[in-house]
Amino acid sequence: MSARRSGRRPGDTDTKTQILDAARELFAANGIDKTSIRAIAAAAGVDPALVHHYFGTKHQLFVTAVEFPFDPSVILDQLDATEFNDLGAQIIRTVLTIWDSDFQSAGVAILRSNLAATDAGLLRPFLSEFILANIGSRMTGNDAAKRAGLVASQVIGLIIARYLVKLEPIVSMSIEEAADAVGPTLQRYLGG
Amino acid sequence: MSARRSGRRPGDTDTKTQILDAARELFAANGIDKTSIRAIAAAAGVDPALVHHYFGTKHQLFVTAVEFPFDPSVILDQLDATEFNDLGAQIIRTVLTIWDSDFQSAGVAILRSNLAATDAGLLRPFLSEFILANIGSRMTGNDAAKRAGLVASQVIGLIIARYLVKLEPIVSMSIEEAADAVGPTLQRYLGG
Repeated sequence: MSARRSGRRPGDTDTKTQILDAARELFAANGIDKTSIRAIAAAAGVDPALVHHYFGTKHQLFVTAVEFPFDPSVILDQLDATEFNDLGAQIIRTVLTIWDSDFQSAGVAILRSNLAATDAGLLRPFLSEFILANIGSRMTGNDAAKRAGLVASQVIGLIIARYLVKLEPIVSMSIEEAADAVGPTLQRYLGG
Repeated sequence: MSARRSGRRPGDTDTKTQILDAARELFAANGIDKTSIRAIAAAAGVDPALVHHYFGTKHQLFVTAVEFPFDPSVILDQLDATEFNDLGAQIIRTVLTIWDSDFQSAGVAILRSNLAATDAGLLRPFLSEFILANIGSRMTGNDAAKRAGLVASQVIGLIIARYLVKLEPIVSMSIEEAADAVGPTLQRYLGG
């Protein structure tokens, strides 16, 4: 009954860890869509109902598996509410506002550990099924998926330059300066 | 006198490792320009002449410290020979041609280990003093350094999306397709 355990039995923690490990492995290998709660439960040797009980929906389980300290759906909601013509600049504003906040140290740790994993761990399902699927749904043209991928490449590169490599003068740019400079790049990719 | 040692005494290997460790630490902390062979020698507890004897110039020592399997000066030479108006597309062609080659597995390992290090290890001096100093010297305008940094951000992001995250459809793009799609982004940053 210590504060750290919040009254839970040690067995719960072990089971949760097993489920999260199985989820990370399957999400990384097969993506979110092609991974079922049933498959994660089987890999962890537990009942699917227990997975739902501990982690909620598959979407919520993914968010927990990535160890985000917040629900990244807020990013998508913010972008959904943005006019298409301003989306390029708004992506930069939204992403840098989150990364310039308290999230930064957790973000760097998450990014580092995923980049160190085979095929970048959960970074691919996060980008392709979480972020790009959403942005891509607002894009038109045969090469929309390609251009959505380029949006991701510029955003990842900016995050890495600013927060991991700490490359000057990228680090010192204000969010608005970055949105002005990089927004048109993203808008060109978004609009084709 | 085994083949693996090429007839060198074990002491040579230890000394070289000490010098390389000291070089990596100082280059990562202070950059290339502000790190002297003398300082590296002092940190490794050897004579500066020995550093020169083993590793040649400071530039050559940096290349060895990064563990590049080739001299990255070939990149700079290729870019130097390119007309400014085609530089954006040529940067993509040059970078992806190298990464699509046998270099890829070494490249991924170098990138991973540097991204895992504090402040991305040698990635910052490599980008800012090796690559950007060169490209920046051909750019004009007050914000040239900022725009050179953005060039780096897009190129790193493309490398990470294509070779570490293996994000489709970025992986399947031909080099020319990538040069056509991303070249104009770089050209806009280069030209201001």
